[in-house]
Amino acid sequence: MSKKIGIADTMFARVNMFEIVQKALDDSMEPGIKLERYTVPGVKDLPVACKKLLEEHNCDICIALGMPGDKPIDKVCAHEASQGLIQTQLLTNKHIIEVFVHLDEGKSEKELYEIVKNRTYDHTMNTIALLKGKNELSKKAGKGIRQGKESMGAIK
Amino acid sequence: MSKKIGIADTMFARVNMFEIVQKALDDSMEPGIKLERYTVPGVKDLPVACKKLLEEHNCDICIALGMPGDKPIDKVCAHEASQGLIQTQLLTNKHIIEVFVHLDEGKSEKELYEIVKNRTYDHTMNTIALLKGKNELSKKAGKGIRQGKESMGAIK
Amino acid sequence: MSKKIGIADTMFARVNMFEIVQKALDDSMEPGIKLERYTVPGVKDLPVACKKLLEEHNCDICIALGMPGDKPIDKVCAHEASQGLIQTQLLTNKHIIEVFVHLDEGKSEKELYEIVKNRTYDHTMNTIALLKGKNELSKKAGKGIRQGKESMGAIK
Amino acid sequence: MSKKIGIADTMFARVNMFEIVQKALDDSMEPGIKLERYTVPGVKDLPVACKKLLEEHNCDICIALGMPGDKPIDKVCAHEASQGLIQTQLLTNKHIIEVFVHLDEGKSEKELYEIVKNRTYDHTMNTIALLKGKNELSKKAGKGIRQGKESMGAIK
Amino acid sequence: MSKKIGIADTMFARVNMFEIVQKALDDSMEPGIKLERYTVPGVKDLPVACKKLLEEHNCDICIALGMPGDKPIDKVCAHEASQGLIQTQLLTNKHIIEVFVHLDEGKSEKELYEIVKNRTYDHTMNTIALLKGKNELSKKAGKGIRQGKESMGAIK
Repeated sequence: MSKKIGIADTMFARVNMFEIVQKALDDSMEPGIKLERYTVPGVKDLPVACKKLLEEHNCDICIALGMPGDKPIDKVCAHEASQGLIQTQLLTNKHIIEVFVHLDEGKSEKELYEIVKNRTYDHTMNTIALLKGKNELSKKAGKGIRQGKESMGAIK
Repeated sequence: MSKKIGIADTMFARVNMFEIVQKALDDSMEPGIKLERYTVPGVKDLPVACKKLLEEHNCDICIALGMPGDKPIDKVCAHEASQGLIQTQLLTNKHIIEVFVHLDEGKSEKELYEIVKNRTYDHTMNTIALLKGKNELSKKAGKGIRQGKESMGAIK
Repeated sequence: MSKKIGIADTMFARVNMFEIVQKALDDSMEPGIKLERYTVPGVKDLPVACKKLLEEHNCDICIALGMPGDKPIDKVCAHEASQGLIQTQLLTNKHIIEVFVHLDEGKSEKELYEIVKNRTYDHTMNTIALLKGKNELSKKAGKGIRQGKESMGAIK
Repeated sequence: MSKKIGIADTMFARVNMFEIVQKALDDSMEPGIKLERYTVPGVKDLPVACKKLLEEHNCDICIALGMPGDKPIDKVCAHEASQGLIQTQLLTNKHIIEVFVHLDEGKSEKELYEIVKNRTYDHTMNTIALLKGKNELSKKAGKGIRQGKESMGAIK
Repeated sequence: MSKKIGIADTMFARVNMFEIVQKALDDSMEPGIKLERYTVPGVKDLPVACKKLLEEHNCDICIALGMPGDKPIDKVCAHEASQGLIQTQLLTNKHIIEVFVHLDEGKSEKELYEIVKNRTYDHTMNTIALLKGKNELSKKAGKGIRQGKESMGAIK
């Protein structure tokens, strides 16, 4: 499989999330997948960065990395970014896996870092799976899986 | 009738909703309807999955299955997903029946499961009806029908 | 005038709003206007139903009939539906008159029914007027007119 | 300059805002500017009315006149209308100057009327300026100018 | 590099933000970058102004300058403007760097002015960097950088 994953990241984030993607890709041992990076100031700049990665840099899929702040205005920004990322997907017919960790998700910087690391890592693996086909994740469907936090499991 | 229903489901959901769709389709005894499945991580990934099912996998209609979480951020995610699903319908001129059950809709896991089962089942039947034509559901119009919960009935 | 009004209605509504439209059209004594009906499960399914009525069933204008529930999630659904109806109008350059009555607008079922009846009736008349031209309603502009409730009148 | 300004107004508004636009245009003494009017029931009908004025009636710019109500549902309607007006501008590459006065902006009907009169008048002048070119308003930039209320002035 | 940056600003803002952009561009000592200005009444007029700068005035990138008010209605306006700016980027495949300073971000006019000056200045530098390429800002990624306020730094 020769594929290209676009990675859009921000100056605003407090963790170098791109490095975590690189680590996960290495661990996946998938040959022939390349990363293409695009760095912007904040999350609201991610939609067009992803659109350019998909349309101008021939990426097959994107990961949008961001860490929105903890104030009400930051929540609004994250919402606008998410809407834009969905619109971008509909305009390109390609997936963009959004990996957002809000600054108030962790009680300490240590916990926050763990969430960022795990969510970014897990979603990189999901991205690689989606590149393989639409049923690659079906065996995990309906199991209450959470990226970056403990999964809730299935109910019956 | 030879038709294809696209089914998009998520890893995040806590019930295998796809199986319920399969059960309903079997019970409907409609010949010639096939299912095409697409599994994604969470509800925000459903709009583009449905768009690809409708445009690249030749589905005539879609069902979008999801179980949004119970936190404020989850409500925002569900809202963004719903907006994207409506946009997708407008871009394709095809229906996507959204079957979302929020994790706080049931007071127990048992009640939650019942809602998921009933809503998914009922909406699968609605989907099959919409495949037949725009007036197939007209005899049920204005009757306060709820999927997954007790119906409210008509007022006069 | 030979025109076609598309009517999209829902199973979720608790009143057969379509019949009220028919009554108003009869009362208007406008010759040559036909109705084309499309029934869907709930208000979020109305935008694409209207788009199909306008584009595939050659309707000149639409009326979108719905009765959103009284819970917070229902308010969000109605908001998403309204956004979709506006987008549909912009994509088709045709009007869609939204007739939504929220289940908490009336203090009793009787009052609710009156609001539904009056708003649906009045907006059907508005729809017929818009079919005649862009200045047909100008004589009523700025007069604080409410459909389904008492009008507020003009201030000076 | 031979230009056409589209004016979309509503039955819901409690002031005949169109007449105020006419008065401002007269006062401006600009020769060769014509008005084209389109009246709709409420603010949610304004976006498509403006789109039709711009695309089907050859208007160069539009003014969207409305007076949203003071209840929560009215605020949501105004928000949806505003989103639609912005989308219309992006689809046409033409300006639509939104002149909305909320019914709770004034403490009395008299104060409300003054706000409506002033905001409509001032924005008509802004509209005429925008017709002349993109730098016509630059000398007023950054001065805290409010239409319909006292301006806040520049800070340093 | 011969490039053109579009600058959209407003009458509503209380600081002449355009002058700050000019100062930053001068300080950058980048040869061959020109500014093209477009002034509108308020933030909701910025999206189409930017679209026209990008499409009709051949700008390569835009900066949207605005100072939304401190009342709830102003927050809604800013949100609508931001959504429109993101849509504009997706329609043009070009960046628009949004520089919004809310009137309640500073405790005094002096503090507010400092935020405006710093955020506008810093984002002008970001805009120049983005003109150079998608990896120009990568060395600053994940460092918790804030424009107009003290940066939060990276966590580990």
